[in-house]
Amino acid sequence: MELVTINDVRAAASRIGGLTLRTPLLDSEPLSAEFGSRILAKPENLQHTGSFKVRGALNTLLDWRDRGILPAGVVSFSAGNHAAAVARAGEQLGVRAIVAMPTEPVASKVENVVRYGGEIVRTADLAGTCAALAAEHGYPALYPFDLPEVIAGQGTVGLEICADGPEPDLVLVPVGGGGLLSGVAVAVRALAPRARIVGVEPETSNAMSLAVRAGEIVPVPDPTATIADGLMAPFAGRHTLAHVRALVDEVVEVPDEAIGDAWRGVVESTKLLVEPSAALGLAALRTGVVRAPPGGVTVLVLSGGNTDLGRLAAQ
Amino acid sequence: MELVTINDVRAAASRIGGLTLRTPLLDSEPLSAEFGSRILAKPENLQHTGSFKVRGALNTLLDWRDRGILPAGVVSFSAGNHAAAVARAGEQLGVRAIVAMPTEPVASKVENVVRYGGEIVRTADLAGTCAALAAEHGYPALYPFDLPEVIAGQGTVGLEICADGPEPDLVLVPVGGGGLLSGVAVAVRALAPRARIVGVEPETSNAMSLAVRAGEIVPVPDPTATIADGLMAPFAGRHTLAHVRALVDEVVEVPDEAIGDAWRGVVESTKLLVEPSAALGLAALRTGVVRAPPGGVTVLVLSGGNTDLGRLAAQ
Repeated sequence: MELVTINDVRAAASRIGGLTLRTPLLDSEPLSAEFGSRILAKPENLQHTGSFKVRGALNTLLDWRDRGILPAGVVSFSAGNHAAAVARAGEQLGVRAIVAMPTEPVASKVENVVRYGGEIVRTADLAGTCAALAAEHGYPALYPFDLPEVIAGQGTVGLEICADGPEPDLVLVPVGGGGLLSGVAVAVRALAPRARIVGVEPETSNAMSLAVRAGEIVPVPDPTATIADGLMAPFAGRHTLAHVRALVDEVVEVPDEAIGDAWRGVVESTKLLVEPSAALGLAALRTGVVRAPPGGVTVLVLSGGNTDLGRLAAQ
Repeated sequence: MELVTINDVRAAASRIGGLTLRTPLLDSEPLSAEFGSRILAKPENLQHTGSFKVRGALNTLLDWRDRGILPAGVVSFSAGNHAAAVARAGEQLGVRAIVAMPTEPVASKVENVVRYGGEIVRTADLAGTCAALAAEHGYPALYPFDLPEVIAGQGTVGLEICADGPEPDLVLVPVGGGGLLSGVAVAVRALAPRARIVGVEPETSNAMSLAVRAGEIVPVPDPTATIADGLMAPFAGRHTLAHVRALVDEVVEVPDEAIGDAWRGVVESTKLLVEPSAALGLAALRTGVVRAPPGGVTVLVLSGGNTDLGRLAAQ
C-alpha cells in the first residue's frame, strides 16, 4: 500500500495553515526534572476545537475542493473530537456534517460538535451507522483516521515538532485508530531520522497492538472500557496499520489506572487542560514501559483537551 | 518619581531570556466569537513556576549580580507565586530565599516553593514579618511588586505581547500590588501607543483602585476576602501607583462571583489550567465593566496557573 509522504504532509501544512493554529512546543521543567530528559509538550488541546483533529478533517475537505470533488455533505463516526473537527471544517467550506457518536459521549464533546453546526446521530455501532448514513444521504465518509488525506493532515503535528524544537530523540503519540501516529511518523521519520517513534494505547482499547501482532486488522472486544474516551477505536485502519508497520518503532500498552494518574499529572505539571487520551505518553514513561533517553529530548504529543472538569478533579 | 522605561524592560528581557519561557500568544476562537473581538491570551500559567513572577524576581537578582551587590540571601512576602519565583531565582543564582506566606496558602503553591528550595514562614502579617526577617538575617527584601527591577522584569510580558501578535487595542491585566500592570503598561504604552491598558482588581481586594482614588497608598481592610488568592496585596506600591497614574487608562473592579464564573470560563474556553487571579480580564469583559473593541484585538494576560483542581471543579 502506498504511504503518505513528507511532501503530502508539507502540502497539507500549506493548505490548512491559515485555518489552524501552529501550536507551540512547550518545555516542562517539572517533567524534565522527573525523568532526567528534556520533556517538551506539543499541546494540541490548544488547537481550534480543542484537538488535533481539525488538521486532518480540514486537509481532506480542502484537498477534495482542490480536486473539484467537494461534496454537499459528509458523514463520519467519532467519540467527539473528529466530529467537532468535521463540523468546523464543514462550516468553513459550506459542507453539511453528519456524525455517528456513542450513546454516552462526553458532554463537552457534544457541545463542541453542536457549536460548529454538526449533526449528531447517537449509536452503539459507530462504523455501521456511519455506513448507513452514507447510503441514506449519498455523502462520502470523512473517516476519522483511515484516509491518506487525514493522515497527511495529522502529520503537520510532526512537521511542527521538527521545525520548532530541538531534534527529538523520542516522540510519544497516543493511539486510537492510528491516524495521528501515522502522520507524525511520516514527518518525524523524514525530518529526524534517528528519533524513536512510539505509539501508546490503553490496554483495554488496543486496536493497533492487536493488528500489529496479528499482521491484520482485528476488532477490539470492548474498546469503550478505557477512561481515554478519545481512543476508543473499534479497529485499526488499513492505511494506518501499513504506516505503523513501516515507520513506527513500537506500539506499547498502558493500564487504565496509569492513564488516570498521568492525566492528572499532565494537567498539574504542564498547566494545560487535557483530556485523558492526551496523557498516554506520560503514562508510558511513568509505568516504565518506555524510557525517556537520559539527557535527550522527549516530545509528548498532547492530543486534545475536551473533557469535564469534575471527572478530572475526581482522579 | 522616576518611571521604569522601555529600555529597562528591554534590558530585563536580555537578562532573563535564557532562564524564562517566551510564552506564546494564543488565539481563542470561542472567546473571540463570544465578544466579536479577536481575543488573544498571554498564558503565563505556562511560565516556569506557573506564573509570570519569575520574570521580575530573576531580573532583580541578575541586575543585582551585574551591579556586584548580589546578597547571600533575600527575604520577601507572597501568597505563593512570587515566593516560588524568588526560590527558583535564588536556587539558580545560589541565593537563600526566605518568604513570608499566609497562614492558609493554596497547597500547590506551598509545594511549588518547597520544590525550588524556598523557606516559608507562615504569618497573618505578611509585610511586617518580611521586615522582621530582613532585620533578623540582614538580607535585603526582594519585594513582590514595588521595586523598579521587578516592574521591569514583569514588563517583558508586554514586550512579548507587542512583538509576537497584532497591535493590541485593549490589554487587560489582573492587579494585586500592580507590578505586572506597571511593567506591561511601560512596554505597551511605548510599543502600541494607541492601545487601551486596563487593570482589573477584585472588589474586595482593591488596593490600586483605593490608591488611585485617594491619590495615595491606602491599606485594604481585608484583602483576603477574594477567591483570587494571587491578588491579595494589602496595599499598592509607591512605584506601582506612580506607573499606573502615568501610564494606565483605567483600573476597574469586579465582584467575586464574576471571578469564579470567569475562572471556569477561561479554563473551558482556552484549555489552559489557570488560577482564579488569571480570570480577572474575562470577568471584566463578561460583567460588561470593560468592553472588547468590536473587530479589534483584545489581549488577556493570564497571570498564573497554580491552583487546586478540586476548587476549580467546584466552581
